[in-house]
Amino acid sequence: MPTQVTAFPWVPPFAQGFVRDLRVRWALEEAGLPYEVILVDPATKSSADYRRWQPFAQVPAYRDDEVELFESGAIVLHIAAKSEALAPKEPAGRERAMMWVIAALNSVEPQVQNFVTLDAFYGGEAWVEGFRPKAWAMTRERLAALEDWLQAKEWLEDRFTVGDLVMTCVLRELIESGSLKTFPVVEAYVERCLARPAFGRALEAQLETFRRHAPAA
Amino acid sequence: MPTQVTAFPWVPPFAQGFVRDLRVRWALEEAGLPYEVILVDPATKSSADYRRWQPFAQVPAYRDDEVELFESGAIVLHIAAKSEALAPKEPAGRERAMMWVIAALNSVEPQVQNFVTLDAFYGGEAWVEGFRPKAWAMTRERLAALEDWLQAKEWLEDRFTVGDLVMTCVLRELIESGSLKTFPVVEAYVERCLARPAFGRALEAQLETFRRHAPAA
Repeated sequence: MPTQVTAFPWVPPFAQGFVRDLRVRWALEEAGLPYEVILVDPATKSSADYRRWQPFAQVPAYRDDEVELFESGAIVLHIAAKSEALAPKEPAGRERAMMWVIAALNSVEPQVQNFVTLDAFYGGEAWVEGFRPKAWAMTRERLAALEDWLQAKEWLEDRFTVGDLVMTCVLRELIESGSLKTFPVVEAYVERCLARPAFGRALEAQLETFRRHAPAA
Repeated sequence: MPTQVTAFPWVPPFAQGFVRDLRVRWALEEAGLPYEVILVDPATKSSADYRRWQPFAQVPAYRDDEVELFESGAIVLHIAAKSEALAPKEPAGRERAMMWVIAALNSVEPQVQNFVTLDAFYGGEAWVEGFRPKAWAMTRERLAALEDWLQAKEWLEDRFTVGDLVMTCVLRELIESGSLKTFPVVEAYVERCLARPAFGRALEAQLETFRRHAPAA
């Protein structure tokens, strides 16, 4: 059976390049593993059938010969377990890579998402200006910790791993607002990760699907 | 070397029983593994030394003969890899358990935390009443998905795993506000997990430390 990953045929421009199948595509590109995309339209994603695969009605869901999974963080860890391109072979190094995936998902992404979604989801609502400084303060605290951690480091650990892949996907959402400017070490780190050819291929693959399915103007 | 876990000597009452070393203590209790607690006071947690172990200046951090880790989600996955009490032996089952840990941490906890911390962190601020209905709507959507998933199931998969452990720690934060009442299947599931003797031992161990270090009235 070919490896299958679900994705949306089209999303509004602000979300293009950020839908989470990108994380899985990037991991598969780093690992050099081929995959097949299953497009899931809005009606299908809420169906009982799809929810048995992805209970939260989101993308990506994933299956291969070994396992059926949802949750992009879990899928990239599964791919990392198959490929030394994403994690070292020795057990402690693998666990450190897994640790950074979890840190990105649970100690950085919630803060970043609260900050970056304020305008996209709630733009113009009065309460937003009360929350914005709190959301930024929590994000800034995590960026400051990463700025310290990454001093004189090329990657989060001593080589590129799936932890860098997920951390970069979390942090790149801050680029457009200019929020990384005051954290030059983090900014250079994110740019270094995004310059990897595998990221470029993954991004282009997601965007190409959206171009093909763009609604008529 | 004994297994070491960091914890705070004392926290304000609203946080007692919810500091994240609880998740690690619970996993170690399920696995039947002894551990030693290293108390980290506010000055120590921000020190450069501690930040080399826990970059975000939080608890828990962890070390054993195999690896040094931070991030409670990563630590419980490491413990689960050593113990069949927390995940089945066969690879696909282990990956499904890992998947539910990630789902709890990245698709449920951010929503729950936004909702439950509004009053604890920002009580009385005017903007809070604007955000509250949005935070609840996002939490409710995830609870509804779990209510569907858990129909006729005792656990998230076909046995108790580390995924149930982390999901329960995330969801129990909603108990006090009564927010689980409209999701009776989820509520019964959380109660079933919390009734496990290992959870009781872990909770008591955290609370006992706080009692010993309570500031003089």
